[in-house]
Amino acid sequence: MPFDYHQKVLFKHCDPAGIVFYPRYFEMINDATEAFFDEALGCPWEILHETANIPTVEITTRFSAPSRHGDALIIRLEVTRLGRSSLGLRFQATCGGETRFVANSTLVRIAKTGRPEPWPDNLRTKITSFLGDTA
Amino acid sequence: MPFDYHQKVLFKHCDPAGIVFYPRYFEMINDATEAFFDEALGCPWEILHETANIPTVEITTRFSAPSRHGDALIIRLEVTRLGRSSLGLRFQATCGGETRFVANSTLVRIAKTGRPEPWPDNLRTKITSFLGDTA
Amino acid sequence: MPFDYHQKVLFKHCDPAGIVFYPRYFEMINDATEAFFDEALGCPWEILHETANIPTVEITTRFSAPSRHGDALIIRLEVTRLGRSSLGLRFQATCGGETRFVANSTLVRIAKTGRPEPWPDNLRTKITSFLGDTA
Amino acid sequence: MPFDYHQKVLFKHCDPAGIVFYPRYFEMINDATEAFFDEALGCPWEILHETANIPTVEITTRFSAPSRHGDALIIRLEVTRLGRSSLGLRFQATCGGETRFVANSTLVRIAKTGRPEPWPDNLRTKITSFLGDTA
Repeated sequence: MPFDYHQKVLFKHCDPAGIVFYPRYFEMINDATEAFFDEALGCPWEILHETANIPTVEITTRFSAPSRHGDALIIRLEVTRLGRSSLGLRFQATCGGETRFVANSTLVRIAKTGRPEPWPDNLRTKITSFLGDTA
Repeated sequence: MPFDYHQKVLFKHCDPAGIVFYPRYFEMINDATEAFFDEALGCPWEILHETANIPTVEITTRFSAPSRHGDALIIRLEVTRLGRSSLGLRFQATCGGETRFVANSTLVRIAKTGRPEPWPDNLRTKITSFLGDTA
Repeated sequence: MPFDYHQKVLFKHCDPAGIVFYPRYFEMINDATEAFFDEALGCPWEILHETANIPTVEITTRFSAPSRHGDALIIRLEVTRLGRSSLGLRFQATCGGETRFVANSTLVRIAKTGRPEPWPDNLRTKITSFLGDTA
Repeated sequence: MPFDYHQKVLFKHCDPAGIVFYPRYFEMINDATEAFFDEALGCPWEILHETANIPTVEITTRFSAPSRHGDALIIRLEVTRLGRSSLGLRFQATCGGETRFVANSTLVRIAKTGRPEPWPDNLRTKITSFLGDTA
């Protein structure tokens, strides 16, 4: 059960070469993750961040084709792993069926004390329902 | 022969958790690469981009410890591979000896026609002098 | 006839003080302008930029209250002036009725030659329909 | 007694039109202010922000000429006003003697309680020494 995040490529995303400046893709990945927690899991990031942080601890990305101003990107988010306090995500961005990038990341829930903290049970249950065949 | 790029963590880099927002690290990586071409290779990016683009086609990053406002980062850049039109780079960011992230990327030189184009000979010679033991 | 642009305050917009980092507001203003041309004027920026640039030549902004992660901003855009090749815009961002900022800007249409160029007639007609009482 | 902040225009600053995307100028203005407090006043922002925030409450900017990738900008910062808890700053960015933008801003020191707080005496004394003829 994937989650699709729609993002038009805007002027601000593009570099002098007329294509998306790749650090902007990581902002899109972050926005897609925030939207997934809010819209799919019913757990807004602004609430979640009151008690913990959720840093990205690793991310591997392959950019296979450039994106241009005006492109309508669909960023598909899939849950690939759910650990005690970690979460594996996969992102595939496409435009008109062409893949633009694929990224795999790991996030960890960190308490305000600075130590990893388990996902709350109700959130764990909701995330589990998104664990796909790619897991 | 590594290239060291110094970057103080500024207010703009940090998120509500008080640590560097990770897409900002990719801007730093891009800045370090631009400085390497300019200062180490004597080939400013603004000149290089007149005839070609140099997109990042893949990048793998592991963030091992958070960075905070005011931290003095040293981003060490090493050349790991030199292909016909590609370039492998490794970045290790440290602060006071502690590793903050390690990234490995591949860049490709793309002509204005949209096709990969070999590095010019003089630039190739200079890059080769930076090929380290990690290659 | 104003144009309302909706923007939730996201994690990426916020600084270590937990409020919107003000340069991010200018990205929102730029996004709102891009959406106005696309959705209200039927003239997507990616098309418009094929033949001209539309730099902001001046902008005056007053930030009257901070915005926090999760806030649902409404950025109301009004056309205040329409010159031969210039355009005056006013932006008022509110959240739950409280004003967060008001900005007044001037944009100019610049041909690829670098010289100001009049708005095309069909675009001028559409923009005129948005000229409000604040003009 | 002005404070000069040097900023080369980097790839990340530029838009598809090949010129600085203006929200990036506000990041530069913020960086220049941070450097002024650190290097000129001997009061690093990361220390200052432990006890207070210093939001920009208004800023007026006129962009008089575009900046391109590789341009060596000098951003001259002058103190124009010093209030009980406010600070007026003027920024003039030039490249080879040509003015690129002039900005006037007001910052306010806000305690963690959310209320304006006077500048500490030692900081006030240092800031006063930078109050120029433009004040």
